[in-house]
Amino acid sequence: MYQQDERNLTMVMDLYELTMANGYFNDEDAGARVAFDVFYRKNPDNGGFAIFAGLDQIIEYIENLHFDEDDIAYFRGLNLFNEDFLNYLANFHFSGDVYAFPEGTIMYPNEPVLTVVAPLLDAQLIETAVLLQINHQSLIATKTRRIVKAADGRSVSDFGARRAHNMDAAVYGARAAYIGGAVGSATVLAGKMFGIPVSGTMAHSWVMFYKDEFEAFKHYAENYPDATVLLVDTYDVLGSGIPNAIRCAKEVLEPMEKRLNGVRLDSGDLAYLSKQVRKMLDAAGLTDCKVIVSNSLDEYTISSIISQGGCIDGFGVGERLITAKSDPVFGAVYKIAAVYENGQFAPRIKISENVEKITNPGLKKVYRVYDAEGKAIADLLAKADESIDFGGPVRYVDPNKPWKNRNFTNCTAKELQVPIFIDGKCVYERPALNAIRDYVQKQLDTEIWEEEQRFENPHSHYLDMTPDYYEMKMSLLYLSRQE
Amino acid sequence: MYQQDERNLTMVMDLYELTMANGYFNDEDAGARVAFDVFYRKNPDNGGFAIFAGLDQIIEYIENLHFDEDDIAYFRGLNLFNEDFLNYLANFHFSGDVYAFPEGTIMYPNEPVLTVVAPLLDAQLIETAVLLQINHQSLIATKTRRIVKAADGRSVSDFGARRAHNMDAAVYGARAAYIGGAVGSATVLAGKMFGIPVSGTMAHSWVMFYKDEFEAFKHYAENYPDATVLLVDTYDVLGSGIPNAIRCAKEVLEPMEKRLNGVRLDSGDLAYLSKQVRKMLDAAGLTDCKVIVSNSLDEYTISSIISQGGCIDGFGVGERLITAKSDPVFGAVYKIAAVYENGQFAPRIKISENVEKITNPGLKKVYRVYDAEGKAIADLLAKADESIDFGGPVRYVDPNKPWKNRNFTNCTAKELQVPIFIDGKCVYERPALNAIRDYVQKQLDTEIWEEEQRFENPHSHYLDMTPDYYEMKMSLLYLSRQE
Repeated sequence: MYQQDERNLTMVMDLYELTMANGYFNDEDAGARVAFDVFYRKNPDNGGFAIFAGLDQIIEYIENLHFDEDDIAYFRGLNLFNEDFLNYLANFHFSGDVYAFPEGTIMYPNEPVLTVVAPLLDAQLIETAVLLQINHQSLIATKTRRIVKAADGRSVSDFGARRAHNMDAAVYGARAAYIGGAVGSATVLAGKMFGIPVSGTMAHSWVMFYKDEFEAFKHYAENYPDATVLLVDTYDVLGSGIPNAIRCAKEVLEPMEKRLNGVRLDSGDLAYLSKQVRKMLDAAGLTDCKVIVSNSLDEYTISSIISQGGCIDGFGVGERLITAKSDPVFGAVYKIAAVYENGQFAPRIKISENVEKITNPGLKKVYRVYDAEGKAIADLLAKADESIDFGGPVRYVDPNKPWKNRNFTNCTAKELQVPIFIDGKCVYERPALNAIRDYVQKQLDTEIWEEEQRFENPHSHYLDMTPDYYEMKMSLLYLSRQE
Repeated sequence: MYQQDERNLTMVMDLYELTMANGYFNDEDAGARVAFDVFYRKNPDNGGFAIFAGLDQIIEYIENLHFDEDDIAYFRGLNLFNEDFLNYLANFHFSGDVYAFPEGTIMYPNEPVLTVVAPLLDAQLIETAVLLQINHQSLIATKTRRIVKAADGRSVSDFGARRAHNMDAAVYGARAAYIGGAVGSATVLAGKMFGIPVSGTMAHSWVMFYKDEFEAFKHYAENYPDATVLLVDTYDVLGSGIPNAIRCAKEVLEPMEKRLNGVRLDSGDLAYLSKQVRKMLDAAGLTDCKVIVSNSLDEYTISSIISQGGCIDGFGVGERLITAKSDPVFGAVYKIAAVYENGQFAPRIKISENVEKITNPGLKKVYRVYDAEGKAIADLLAKADESIDFGGPVRYVDPNKPWKNRNFTNCTAKELQVPIFIDGKCVYERPALNAIRDYVQKQLDTEIWEEEQRFENPHSHYLDMTPDYYEMKMSLLYLSRQE
């Protein structure tokens, strides 16, 4: 079922990647080995976590990264680049290493979710696409998870294509929504490309075309006797939509020995209407007929509808999922962390006028630390060359409260980044989309505290540091202040 | 320069378009001639207008609309469709008519910006893509216009690719931003595909790689002596960034008889810093050095910075432009308006539980009415077969105040929709992107009231109706209430 994107997307990059690359090339710095980290600073919607998504498309981007002849011709026309550089670009392939969290990993602010260790020029050229994929898909996966949590066991389907920020946002947004726990999508291309279950029944236009609502329902039921879901709000839900749906069940479907699968409400007070609809359906013996609702839903409206006792079996969620309306920017950044000089990776730090923009410097490892019950109690940054024995107590520093002296005891740990590319070759066995989706579910069910999953004031996951890592960061800050 | 999207995007459609199409096909209703209108209900950000954008991509979508063999195979696997229908789809091409506002037209709620008059099946299959393109590009064009207005003559550039909702949102978002008045984009593919001016200089990584800030600036200036814009906030804007930039201007550029083009601030208090920076640059004789700022800007932050006297020549605007963060959903819908039966188009109306979801029925024309000074005083809905003599007084009904009896006098009028497709053939001469951009600017400069362009409580543009059109809608509502 899997289909790679057939476009050459190489050119979806900011011009400054190329002006910098050209500069590095001219100055013979292009081959200097560097490390860049991708991290983000704030969970969307003030949540307690985010879902790392988009890795598979990053792999495709990097594997396919090449400039076509007309790209080079376009660059030549900009009169910014020298000809040797353009010749170099014409034969360019990514030759670096990439390490990342497996797709679907629960992630937290300020930890490196993806690290590029590569020649400077290579590392620079992939920046825009790496960020774009992570930012988009992590945003939608995380938002969907919130909606799925609010739905509390009821199905959530992506209905968002028409309000998506163009074609890719519909298709890759459907993919991310599936990772986040949606049961499927209405977007056919997402079904075809990724094997995501697709669903869909009728628009208001179906009902309006036939003019008579019962007539419209009858036509639909005769066409899809095994999958009849009727849209009941074109004229008057309780006055005509439901009575006509019940009549359709009795007069059209039951003679074929078929059942009415469901009804859909797309307007009005969904809490009130769904309860009335349920009563009417039950009174008619249609207790197995599902009630599906849609209309500008998100985690907040869904929570409210459920808390009011809305009788709902499934939610079709469109615009507020596919745009992550309440917080539509996922702010992952790509920051240089180290430069190889004098036989080792020397750390780099960005100070910034905004304190939250100070980076975590150096080549590093990130561990997820689990207690004896398997709950993730913290993530831990360590220098890349540190070896940590989790068999005994492990001293750590909480950088927000560095005066406290604490140990991890009786803990296990897992290094979160795994190799994706080594020397430009993909070394990662890409999991199937269903496996990514299951992995999200498993972490949230068994590893991640419920306190981090609630919407109101979720617990902030700890990002601790080994004493050596903390000291390295502090001394670098100290030195930079002296300059 | 123009490059058509090379993908087959046909399958970016909701499954229900296909389940309905299959049903119509089975029932031999697929060829019934119908009219669908695209309209939206609310201007983004409570503004006074929106910009119609995305038409060019709609034309490409419709011209290219076809199902490949593997699409048909995918459908077959869903076990929803009958084989005759799939054979029909395999040879399907759009055969209908499309009328639309020219791209870049200023538009208002509840008027048909695009109308499809086509066989029912054809009209249904293009719904998702038509809405998606209008919703995305109109959203970004409108948002950008707001930002450009706030910038009050200073340049606005799109820096948003990395925060875009995937690849297309970066590329077509850049296109829409340009239509809305951005001077250019950082996204290279948008430059290549659409001829949009591209710009870009350096990231923090450039400065951090060299470790020494002056060294980094020197390298950049030597590479781009004619286009040196230095990023000055990596460590300390006033303490090191600007002093190093001035030193670079004096020691590196001036000996080459070159000037420092600009500096960029990407963090901190941009109002305060820009004023200090301007003073320091001026004191050093660099009065021609531009100050560019970026960092989570939008119309609100830009207005605030300017009202504080910030000394700024240009804005790089990223995430809040490319996602339209403050209001990221543009809600255009696609509603059936008429069905051809008994030798004429019979109007259809949707009632809905939500009063604002009641549609404007029937095949119709929409006029923009101008006063003697050429200002657009109202838009006017008329029945398609009405002929109106704007030479004399034209009676109209304001549907929000139908008891008032008013005339347009001394007015001219323009029909806003123009033919795009007739019998499946594109009959429209597609304007160049620059012409679309100029058209937006011209309307806002000369036709659209300033009172509709302000941010706070903008004037609501009138959407009036001819008495005949109003009466047709009212009688349809009356009849539907009786059923």
